[in-house]
Amino acid sequence: MNKGMIRFILGWIFIIQSVLLLLPCIFAIIYAEQQGIYYAGTALVSFVIGILLSRKKPSDNVFYLKEGCIITALSWIILSFFGAMPLWLSKEIPDFTDAVFEIASGYTTTGSTICPSVEALSHAANFWRCFTHWVGGMGVLVFLIAIVPMSGGSNINLMRAESPGPSVGKLVPKIRQTARILYTIYFGLTIAEFIFLVCGQMPVFDAICSSVGTAGTGGFGIKNDSFASYSDYCQIVVTVFMILFGVNFNAYYFIIYKQFKKAFSMEEVKWYFIIIFTSIAIITINILNQVGNLFVAIKDASFQVGAIITTTGFASADFDTWPILSKTILVMLMFVGACAGSTGGGIKVSRFIISIKSVKKELQSYLHPKLIKKIKMDGHPIEHDIIRATNVYFMTYILIFIISLLVISLEGKSLVTNFTAICATLNNIGPGLEAVGPTQNFADYGILSKWIMIFDMLAGRLELFPMLMLFHPGIWKDFFKKKARRQISQ
Amino acid sequence: MNKGMIRFILGWIFIIQSVLLLLPCIFAIIYAEQQGIYYAGTALVSFVIGILLSRKKPSDNVFYLKEGCIITALSWIILSFFGAMPLWLSKEIPDFTDAVFEIASGYTTTGSTICPSVEALSHAANFWRCFTHWVGGMGVLVFLIAIVPMSGGSNINLMRAESPGPSVGKLVPKIRQTARILYTIYFGLTIAEFIFLVCGQMPVFDAICSSVGTAGTGGFGIKNDSFASYSDYCQIVVTVFMILFGVNFNAYYFIIYKQFKKAFSMEEVKWYFIIIFTSIAIITINILNQVGNLFVAIKDASFQVGAIITTTGFASADFDTWPILSKTILVMLMFVGACAGSTGGGIKVSRFIISIKSVKKELQSYLHPKLIKKIKMDGHPIEHDIIRATNVYFMTYILIFIISLLVISLEGKSLVTNFTAICATLNNIGPGLEAVGPTQNFADYGILSKWIMIFDMLAGRLELFPMLMLFHPGIWKDFFKKKARRQISQ
Repeated sequence: MNKGMIRFILGWIFIIQSVLLLLPCIFAIIYAEQQGIYYAGTALVSFVIGILLSRKKPSDNVFYLKEGCIITALSWIILSFFGAMPLWLSKEIPDFTDAVFEIASGYTTTGSTICPSVEALSHAANFWRCFTHWVGGMGVLVFLIAIVPMSGGSNINLMRAESPGPSVGKLVPKIRQTARILYTIYFGLTIAEFIFLVCGQMPVFDAICSSVGTAGTGGFGIKNDSFASYSDYCQIVVTVFMILFGVNFNAYYFIIYKQFKKAFSMEEVKWYFIIIFTSIAIITINILNQVGNLFVAIKDASFQVGAIITTTGFASADFDTWPILSKTILVMLMFVGACAGSTGGGIKVSRFIISIKSVKKELQSYLHPKLIKKIKMDGHPIEHDIIRATNVYFMTYILIFIISLLVISLEGKSLVTNFTAICATLNNIGPGLEAVGPTQNFADYGILSKWIMIFDMLAGRLELFPMLMLFHPGIWKDFFKKKARRQISQ
Repeated sequence: MNKGMIRFILGWIFIIQSVLLLLPCIFAIIYAEQQGIYYAGTALVSFVIGILLSRKKPSDNVFYLKEGCIITALSWIILSFFGAMPLWLSKEIPDFTDAVFEIASGYTTTGSTICPSVEALSHAANFWRCFTHWVGGMGVLVFLIAIVPMSGGSNINLMRAESPGPSVGKLVPKIRQTARILYTIYFGLTIAEFIFLVCGQMPVFDAICSSVGTAGTGGFGIKNDSFASYSDYCQIVVTVFMILFGVNFNAYYFIIYKQFKKAFSMEEVKWYFIIIFTSIAIITINILNQVGNLFVAIKDASFQVGAIITTTGFASADFDTWPILSKTILVMLMFVGACAGSTGGGIKVSRFIISIKSVKKELQSYLHPKLIKKIKMDGHPIEHDIIRATNVYFMTYILIFIISLLVISLEGKSLVTNFTAICATLNNIGPGLEAVGPTQNFADYGILSKWIMIFDMLAGRLELFPMLMLFHPGIWKDFFKKKARRQISQ
């Protein structure tokens, strides 16, 4: 276990967090809010810890997937805890668990809130909440790879542990270059949305928060009714950008480098759009009677479908009052999630494609038992390892889901509330149905349930395994064994 | 495609069904019910069709898994349709869809009923409903293998297609002998339960229906309140036998042949009992306040846990009124199901064990990427094929679940009703929650939903693939292609 490397990278995480925390300070100054002091204070503490940890460069640059997982899991836990400090210290969120829940929900781009009234929060707090979505969306370690020079090819193991989706491809041979390209596309799209929203007369502060929230497919709103009170134009802009941020970023890379054929033949993206348009069509017809107007029906259906499948979780209508068919479709979209390689959460479209192809292959093998055929995606055969990992992902997902659901059921809330609460947090969506519906919040859950959901949000964002590794006894045996050996040899 | 063999075996299915239909005639005679005529009539028609189909022995004895699947799927469809005839013709269940639903629910040992009042049915009808559980529990093709001499080893493909669980082992080298041993154990246990119930002063007719219903882990009651009005003694006897019929029958085989070590070291059976006792303990504590008495709490918790995990689906209490934690546990047990190689349905305990072991292995591979370790069960390594089949089973299960849920959601019933209705039919349990709860029935669903659920019951009983094969274009291409070729060659 390369503990020097773990220490070094965690140090950098503290430094990055301290820089990020200065941004809400700017808003605190602009709006003359004294809460800014807590952001500055946390930033300072974070910076000092970071410098202390990363002062000494590790002697050994090589590390493996297990270190990648540990670094990733610990980084995200540190970000959630330290990110929560200003909210807690400023008493804007007086309960510590609630503050961690809110910021974990931010970084993991979940968007489930425990605030009964977000409009009562300071501008600094609201910006910070939304901005954590932006940071968490593309991933803070991907950012680290982009800015901190690390020799050796080991940083692919960080990217693998943090990036969403069953497979992480390098767009270009150098992983650092890949990280930079991703962040450039990400930044560009965010700016584009901001410009579109400002053009639609959305206030600048609102436009900033909405753009970063959409980009990370987060879901925190700065209004109590999320997006319902914004103009139709703004709602449509956000709908389009939510869906765009759910697309596999490789597609944008191909488009930028004019490889249009490659971009438009991506199976996952094709199916992502097919699912979106089918769902919008069915829900539009289903809610037409209730809303009474075709334009509103299409607009509301599109916004909600986009918000749920990309796991953004904004809301422009209270879909908890929609007919059962629409609600059932939305609950299912919660599980589907966005494309791999996007900022969205959920199980990911590609995993479902791989599953369906596995089922087809199994049926085929009943017909022709001796035929050996590899499952293909985008024309290339899928490695056996990826198929196995996909299967194991589903199993793990089901197990975490079941255990979480059981624990929060201790509280006696309704089945639908509990089920959609776990669904919304594990898939990083935001709102569920009934008592955690789009017009409600998660404040009513007890402390134990909230910690379970904090775990689920982190596990969901990091694709389950890095968080689970923290509970694997082997990791800690490894951690302490090597230490003992080194002490002896000294 | 060996069509001669398909024809021959389906013929035998008709003949067996005609013999089975004579049993309710006996009860019609005893209780002087004129409905008996419809059972006799259907038996006659069935017999004639059977003789016509099986008259000519097929020239070729060899067939493969695909034929096994087709035979199995078609057999069960034939049984459901012809078995429903007497109920429909006698107008005891005046709607054809309802009659097929009821008998498909019987054969698949589901126990979901569309009858608002089963007490209004004739004795013949009630016996027939319960008896189909007994036939379906161990499987009609397994019975066929036991009685009809078929040379060649191909009948393992019938047994594989019909028997529950991820792997079918031969207890003894000859498959026919295995089928006979299974039926002997099955028959012995049923008789034992009957004797215990009669000793508890249960009326003989009730004891017959209850024993065959428990044996098949079915769930049709002959009283409107299922088991609530029977004595504590009878409830306890049924609880014990439900749990016994959910055990992998291999365990009984080992016990009979005094291989006690083998019997008591079966991992699946061990976990099956661990899950049962844990669930009973938690639910007992959870409902203690509501029922007010420790004995009643333990008795009710045990009965309901036994009824749900074995997918029998009897009820001795209205668990829909229990606290959320208990309801959540019961819903989860619906998915777990019984042991492989038992008469119970659901996903099966062994599949979950294989899943958990796969997850553990995956985590292990993060720690030691180069370590290759096989997953073991009962000390033997599990073949890669079984693991793959287990994974694909889960995928297929999820897909069928999603599509079914979407279709029945068109009707506008509540999320919990729809979810548990699919859960109860696909896992062959019986009752769900809310509008399909233990004191309710499935009559309110529309025709489309009922056919979807009929499909789900059959798919669930036959472990998904045989039913899906019927929808695979390759099967029909194969079916008609060979025919064309033969016509040309003639």
